Amino acid sequence: MKFCSLCATPVVQKIPEGDSRLRYVCPGCGEIHYQNPNIVAGTIPVYENKILLCKRAIEPRKGFWTLPAGFMENQETTTEAAVRETWEEALARVKLGTLYTLFNIPQIDQVHLFFLATIKDGQYGVGEESLETRLFSESEIPWDEISFPTVKKTLQYFIEDRSNQEFPLRVEDIVRDRKT
Amino acid sequence: MKFCSLCATPVVQKIPEGDSRLRYVCPGCGEIHYQNPNIVAGTIPVYENKILLCKRAIEPRKGFWTLPAGFMENQETTTEAAVRETWEEALARVKLGTLYTLFNIPQIDQVHLFFLATIKDGQYGVGEESLETRLFSESEIPWDEISFPTVKKTLQYFIEDRSNQEFPLRVEDIVRDRKT
Repeated sequence: MKFCSLCATPVVQKIPEGDSRLRYVCPGCGEIHYQNPNIVAGTIPVYENKILLCKRAIEPRKGFWTLPAGFMENQETTTEAAVRETWEEALARVKLGTLYTLFNIPQIDQVHLFFLATIKDGQYGVGEESLETRLFSESEIPWDEISFPTVKKTLQYFIEDRSNQEFPLRVEDIVRDRKT
Repeated sequence: MKFCSLCATPVVQKIPEGDSRLRYVCPGCGEIHYQNPNIVAGTIPVYENKILLCKRAIEPRKGFWTLPAGFMENQETTTEAAVRETWEEALARVKLGTLYTLFNIPQIDQVHLFFLATIKDGQYGVGEESLETRLFSESEIPWDEISFPTVKKTLQYFIEDRSNQEFPLRVEDIVRDRKT
């Protein structure tokens, strides 16, 4: 951030009064420009014991397989975001279950949420951000070609928990180097 | 948003290629300025069967009682945010339990998370954003002076669940009028 988005004055970094963190502050209009983590929401879409994965058509990790997920938008709920992303990436309408995994990834300022889901009528397709979508049985999952750690861990937990049909919420941190 | 925060050119609202939503886009440098929901994280700090509430020293809802909670910061986890806010508002060090409530509030672009927590050593104080902090037994909770719906609902659920000592995750939408 270089300029105030309200008045175009060059911003400065300072700790506002009563705060303890460096913020981008506008010396012109006084606006404090807070920056906060984003939520990524997605699903584990299941049909007849198989899991729907999408081969990514876009960077990052183009060509790798992912669970449908993406950035939550303003004016929607986490569940709406998960359902929407499943439609956009895999053209699948899902019946949502409970929240299943929550990953904190502080070094990239993201929180990832995955919900249990079943595909209505077994219908799916290839959305604009996907090269291919496919239902995988457990033994077919391409473990070496999974896009992101949170997707891999969600799949691993899911397969583990499926054996006894209990899916408790899993909260986990994926921490590498953080900015100071 | 009126100006590009990278190059100070006046932004326009348009739907970028491959997107389906209006975004602030810079006609100068091409940057798309996404805007996404924020996470508020907090705790239900308990000591000897009593719940710690904070009387707010700042707007909104100054003078009303709240559970300690606030905006999650970049480079931290949801649990770190909840612990930090409890320290800042109530000078209480807590041992965190599981995630207990998740509220979607789409009309204000927020997701609220509250974690179970116990106060270490029963020590607490009055943080900068609080006028007063106090441990309340169930019968003492000032229901008519609670700051926010998510705090009230979290307290109601907690008291209900405490009777059988099971605290399943509660996910709930608080939806009023949304922007189109």
